Amino acid sequence: MPKITSLEPGFYRIPLPELLTDSMHGEMRAFELNTVRVRDAEGAEGVGYTFTVGRNGAAIDATLAREFPELVVGEDADLIERLWQKLWWALHYGGRGGPTVLALSAFDIALWDLKAKRAELPLWKLLGGHDPRVPCYAGGIDLLLPLDALLRQTDANLERGFRAIKMKVGRRRLAEDVERVAAIREHLGDGFPLMVDANMKWTVDEAIRAARAFQRFDPVWLEEPIVPDDVAGHARVVKEGGLPIAAGENLRTVWEFKQLIATGGVTYPEPDVTNCGGITAFMKIAHLAEAFGLPVTTHGAHDVTVHCLAAVPNRSYLEAHGFGLDRYIAEPLRIEDGFAIAPDRPGHGIAFDWKGLEKVRT
Amino acid sequence: MPKITSLEPGFYRIPLPELLTDSMHGEMRAFELNTVRVRDAEGAEGVGYTFTVGRNGAAIDATLAREFPELVVGEDADLIERLWQKLWWALHYGGRGGPTVLALSAFDIALWDLKAKRAELPLWKLLGGHDPRVPCYAGGIDLLLPLDALLRQTDANLERGFRAIKMKVGRRRLAEDVERVAAIREHLGDGFPLMVDANMKWTVDEAIRAARAFQRFDPVWLEEPIVPDDVAGHARVVKEGGLPIAAGENLRTVWEFKQLIATGGVTYPEPDVTNCGGITAFMKIAHLAEAFGLPVTTHGAHDVTVHCLAAVPNRSYLEAHGFGLDRYIAEPLRIEDGFAIAPDRPGHGIAFDWKGLEKVRT
Ligand SMILES: [Mg+2]
Ligand SMILES: [Mg+2]
Repeated sequence: MPKITSLEPGFYRIPLPELLTDSMHGEMRAFELNTVRVRDAEGAEGVGYTFTVGRNGAAIDATLAREFPELVVGEDADLIERLWQKLWWALHYGGRGGPTVLALSAFDIALWDLKAKRAELPLWKLLGGHDPRVPCYAGGIDLLLPLDALLRQTDANLERGFRAIKMKVGRRRLAEDVERVAAIREHLGDGFPLMVDANMKWTVDEAIRAARAFQRFDPVWLEEPIVPDDVAGHARVVKEGGLPIAAGENLRTVWEFKQLIATGGVTYPEPDVTNCGGITAFMKIAHLAEAFGLPVTTHGAHDVTVHCLAAVPNRSYLEAHGFGLDRYIAEPLRIEDGFAIAPDRPGHGIAFDWKGLEKVRT
Repeated sequence: MPKITSLEPGFYRIPLPELLTDSMHGEMRAFELNTVRVRDAEGAEGVGYTFTVGRNGAAIDATLAREFPELVVGEDADLIERLWQKLWWALHYGGRGGPTVLALSAFDIALWDLKAKRAELPLWKLLGGHDPRVPCYAGGIDLLLPLDALLRQTDANLERGFRAIKMKVGRRRLAEDVERVAAIREHLGDGFPLMVDANMKWTVDEAIRAARAFQRFDPVWLEEPIVPDDVAGHARVVKEGGLPIAAGENLRTVWEFKQLIATGGVTYPEPDVTNCGGITAFMKIAHLAEAFGLPVTTHGAHDVTVHCLAAVPNRSYLEAHGFGLDRYIAEPLRIEDGFAIAPDRPGHGIAFDWKGLEKVRT
């Protein structure tokens, strides 16, 4: 039995290479990275991580440092479902949702990495094994970028091998959004996969109005039109807006996905493996989507998420956007002609530059 | 303008005077208390607090210490709604739910206390003012207490002035629960208000079966029969179980209450002012319940919660249960012939024994 002998959390604040902007998070200049290194009695190590858009990483770190070790050290690392339940219920009262789930996600990723390494399998094969070539898109975080810079960013993404692109919407007036989406559609040409993302900016009726205005630009989906908490509102946007809806990066449990999916409130469920409860939860959400006849897409952390999508038949696009974390990863995700390639190294295959990270430790 | 000049968090671990047990939290031997002291430019102070059943207080403390001060110092303490929104959105990505909401609740309570003190009004009058005499019940946390001890505890509660009592259910076999509830009903006599609380132990169908088995003992309500995440399941328990259902101590937003209430999944919404988003959120939930024709009850922290129920016409019972926090409060809540009396001191009127608390600081 691979007994857990230690859990080592890391907490880093990493300046962004460029200013990022969206409708609800405003200007983002740095992100927080929380890592987890789990070691077993035979010296094997699994690595997991999560991130925030700049705040509350200290709470994630507190939970990982203060609560997790006494709950998991000495336990069998192979019994991931059992450990997940143990942590969920031990922390439930003061922990249901929020940073606790980000901490749990990071730990869960580390356990799956460890298990796959021990089995000498790439994670995507351990999780099911479907197709290592995963269609992906460049996720622009560019709401306040002037139009000419937005066009230059788009060209750069095409050169990097992307064959699908997402842009932000949710500016002060809908007419500005329409103008920008029209320009990008014109630039990319008809049929080129283009997504738009409102980051929860609108009321339900504003979202319906926006969806109708975007229809003529044929987006693959409209993402997060409203707050994640309004399940019935999502169902109205899907029905009355007439566009496919992606949502989920701010849902924190399988239950929340179940509600949104069962209510008909989402077309492209979009879990983030680093905040939905880890790989354990992501796979359940992906399978739930499959049962409802829905594709599954993703948010953030593409280097680990590519394994989840490479494992399932109902995978849609992978979001490629890593806040420039590439700088701290030995072999970042490869993008080839619109596809991300799940690596064949054992585990998730992400080797962090721990020395480099040391310089940005909080 | 009462400008906020400082926010001082406190984090304490307080041994319980007696062992507490319920179906999902197991044995509780200590609880965590997180306090917030907010001071304004004129030297006035507001005090708020939250608690956990023993874990994750460190995450609450991290959020209060690391994130809140730079977001609130310098702001107008009177603009509570504005500050609430600012904190919610600043912390949303890494904070939606869980300990972040407990931190926000404690801070929000402190702001309301400050506002009421400055207005020289008891909080319950500031919040609306209905009736300072609030019916209350003794919340036993007694699942594993042998029956004779349970009967003795009941008699002690009657002597303390309680005229309504709650007991735990959710033992290994339903027959054990039935036997215990039968004994307490027999002891109390017909018509004496008795509540039962399962702390999320059951599946939906187990809950329906239990509710039907308890019908003949005429409980006021069955509390938390299933996990808080299953909205549709709650609606089934209400309809098929045939008992009034209380739920909400593990819901963390007004939105979650809205969903549960609008779906017909709850008879007695039961917010906890220290974990639902504070007084701001509690009052919205109470008013939402009123609009749906539902009474509102409460969970925990009775010394502050009594003000919320004394402010609204649809108040049901106040839960009296404070983990023995009374030891650290100058004038704890008065219980008279089944009623808790909201104090007439300015603010919430809770004066903590800060010196005594210093000895249990974490
Ligand atoms: Mg998004
Ligand atoms: Mg309860």
